Amino acid sequence: MDLLVVGYVIGTALMIEGALMLIPLLFAAFIGESVVPFLAAIGASLVIGFPLYKAKPGTSNLLSKEGVVSTALVWIILSLTGMLPFIISGAIPDPVDAFFETVSGFTTTGSTILINVEILPKSVLLWRSLMHWIGGMGILVFMLALIPLSGGTQMNLMKAESPGPSISKLVPRAQDTAKILYGIYFAMTIASILVFRLLGMPLFDSVCIGLGAAGTGGFSVLNDGCASYTTLQQAAITIFVTLFGINFNFYFLLLFKRDKKSAFKMEEVNWYLIIMLSSIILMSVCLVVEGCYDSFFRAFHDSAFHAASIMTTTGYVTTDLNVWPAFNKVILIMLMVIGACAGSTGGGLKVSRVMLTFKAFIRECRKILHPQQIIRVHMDGKTVDENVIHSAGTYFFIYVLLTFASILLVSLDDLGWDTTISAVIATFNNIGPGFGLVGSMENFSGLSHFSKLILSADMLIGRLEIFPIMLLFSRRTWHKF
Amino acid sequence: MDLLVVGYVIGTALMIEGALMLIPLLFAAFIGESVVPFLAAIGASLVIGFPLYKAKPGTSNLLSKEGVVSTALVWIILSLTGMLPFIISGAIPDPVDAFFETVSGFTTTGSTILINVEILPKSVLLWRSLMHWIGGMGILVFMLALIPLSGGTQMNLMKAESPGPSISKLVPRAQDTAKILYGIYFAMTIASILVFRLLGMPLFDSVCIGLGAAGTGGFSVLNDGCASYTTLQQAAITIFVTLFGINFNFYFLLLFKRDKKSAFKMEEVNWYLIIMLSSIILMSVCLVVEGCYDSFFRAFHDSAFHAASIMTTTGYVTTDLNVWPAFNKVILIMLMVIGACAGSTGGGLKVSRVMLTFKAFIRECRKILHPQQIIRVHMDGKTVDENVIHSAGTYFFIYVLLTFASILLVSLDDLGWDTTISAVIATFNNIGPGFGLVGSMENFSGLSHFSKLILSADMLIGRLEIFPIMLLFSRRTWHKF
Repeated sequence: MDLLVVGYVIGTALMIEGALMLIPLLFAAFIGESVVPFLAAIGASLVIGFPLYKAKPGTSNLLSKEGVVSTALVWIILSLTGMLPFIISGAIPDPVDAFFETVSGFTTTGSTILINVEILPKSVLLWRSLMHWIGGMGILVFMLALIPLSGGTQMNLMKAESPGPSISKLVPRAQDTAKILYGIYFAMTIASILVFRLLGMPLFDSVCIGLGAAGTGGFSVLNDGCASYTTLQQAAITIFVTLFGINFNFYFLLLFKRDKKSAFKMEEVNWYLIIMLSSIILMSVCLVVEGCYDSFFRAFHDSAFHAASIMTTTGYVTTDLNVWPAFNKVILIMLMVIGACAGSTGGGLKVSRVMLTFKAFIRECRKILHPQQIIRVHMDGKTVDENVIHSAGTYFFIYVLLTFASILLVSLDDLGWDTTISAVIATFNNIGPGFGLVGSMENFSGLSHFSKLILSADMLIGRLEIFPIMLLFSRRTWHKF
Repeated sequence: MDLLVVGYVIGTALMIEGALMLIPLLFAAFIGESVVPFLAAIGASLVIGFPLYKAKPGTSNLLSKEGVVSTALVWIILSLTGMLPFIISGAIPDPVDAFFETVSGFTTTGSTILINVEILPKSVLLWRSLMHWIGGMGILVFMLALIPLSGGTQMNLMKAESPGPSISKLVPRAQDTAKILYGIYFAMTIASILVFRLLGMPLFDSVCIGLGAAGTGGFSVLNDGCASYTTLQQAAITIFVTLFGINFNFYFLLLFKRDKKSAFKMEEVNWYLIIMLSSIILMSVCLVVEGCYDSFFRAFHDSAFHAASIMTTTGYVTTDLNVWPAFNKVILIMLMVIGACAGSTGGGLKVSRVMLTFKAFIRECRKILHPQQIIRVHMDGKTVDENVIHSAGTYFFIYVLLTFASILLVSLDDLGWDTTISAVIATFNNIGPGFGLVGSMENFSGLSHFSKLILSADMLIGRLEIFPIMLLFSRRTWHKF
């Protein structure tokens, strides 16, 4: 383990975080709020980050191992410094609560322990939403876009931070890939903010909701979530979160390669939309049949909003989902688990991983019928590497195992099945709200400190797709050679 | 698809079922109960079975495809004829209820829709428990032990019916393997009945509880389950269900090969006992800490009974588990999912499948640290075939997918999270009771007909490990060549 190079990555990330905190700082100065919370946090980032950055190693080449460890540590340390504005401003004095809220921000979960967000300083709310945006595409990918590192290094960082069963370089150089990704991300974020503003949303709300939609985060700036926005504004949110849940390869093909055919043929994107649409239809029918809604249009509108919000793992809400029929709740839980496309800003298992494993199952069936035949799994017309399929299956297993283990630990709070199970699934998949006591009109403040720490770990493990955090705790990782 | 050979297997199985029904028939005659229900059911078995048996094909060689289809059909058709005694005796007049109860019997689930079992004719209760015994080791394995078929045929049937990620022939000839398995099974069943009787259990109870323990079924003959048996009798049940949950290879190595060293080194058996013991300790500590029990001994006794009963997927109960702490309920749910050893009479995922996938995960971690290295997975000192590992991962995925789908369908009954989730997990893994309205002191009578049919399907799918039932519905299976 080359600790110098790990330190260099952490130091650089901390300095970038400090630089990004200038945004809420300037905003605070502009509207006359206290700049102290941000000044202090920026100071802390620099004090820790600069020496680490300066102790730059001769060779800056990270192996796979260092890439994974750096990524895990960056996310933990950035959360520890990122929570300082919450504590210092007095918005969230309790450190465990502040850590939970910050991890929830960076991991684009959007679960909150705040009961009343409307009394918070606006600059703190902006930082809260900005964390979603930073965490959505990833701080290390952002770093890669800015700073040239040697080849192997870049891919190893990108692999560790980017979601999905296999990361595809869009262009030969990783730095260019990172630049393209952030370019698309930035442009779409601006577009969403503009549309929200044009539809009459207050400017501050537009920016925060736009940042949250882009990162598929879910922190809102009003106590009722998105309930008080107009139908049109809600529809716009539905559309934008859906767009941010699509694999960014799609936009790359469409905008840079001008290859419409390949883009619209992407199997993952098609499945993603099909799953979402069928869920919307099933849920709206159930809402009308069960008599929860008189108007099919309203039922459809609300189903679409929440299906999109939950499947993309954003977590914005407009209504109390606790009163929805059990059938709809199960569908929403399934959408939480499936999640958005790989290579998007969304979380969950990822549609492509679900697809791959499903295709592997179909193959197992065919193997029983024709034991001698060799059958390959295809995606987008190409043969999928057996290792990728294999990893998807293994990933799924450990994903369920960790979910179970977390449910076991959180069950010590004895808060009922709906609360316990949904709290774990909602954080592990980076959604936001669950059901019961952590439902859409409730928050996570009622959980014990122990549960909040477990769920914070779940958010990090979920966002980084398990391996980086797990490997931190492996003896082998810290072996000398 | 060679339908003649499929018909031959079904016909033979039906005739064996008819023959086995002579046992409750003779018992009914002996104690003066009506023999009509069994006469009629035997008649039906012969009327359907004999022509199918007689239309024996020239070559009786089943390919993998026919083996799978025969197995699925045998289990469904045997349930349809096996339910006749319930209907004709008037014990369970409703056909859906009778089907549910019969499937629950054969699949060794032990979920019941009966509110009062004590008013049933004893002969019917005996048939109910006998079904557990038949289903435990498998009707087709039984058939193999009796009737010589050509080589490929036997293994293809055995593979389809025997649980676990890979079926190992104990001896070169499949028929001999089947004979050895049933020999061990029969001897252990007799031993358990004798022990129960010696400890003072009434003879009828000893037989029924012994048959249920052997098949890891769980139907009891008293309304309070096993609550009114003495502590010693309950302890004996704990020990015997644990023994029946062990991979039968263990007994083969111990008794036939006299190879103690290999037997006690079997990784699966060790993990099985370690998981069970840690669960018992965790649960008893939790029971005492939460103040549910004053005496640690009682807490340990009850935890041991239920951990063994649930993990082996038997499902006998002595107390109302609904009042246990949430922590213990989550542990029990985890034990339900893990299940017993492969090659035992228990259900669930099977310990070896969980182990294999866990080892595959550890390998994935090591691959990240050392991308170039080729790492093999070992079990019992031998390298595991990559296909077996791969299948275990895929199996797990489709297992969770079907669990989710069933929960979705059963959620239409809107009976609460605990009832819905546990009803599906308890039937899919062939346990018996769940929590909430299907808890240990309740039964499945309150569910809708639709849910009962879904859960019946789950029991069959779970017992046959998914593929046979799934392949019944595949167009490819029924293709001409």
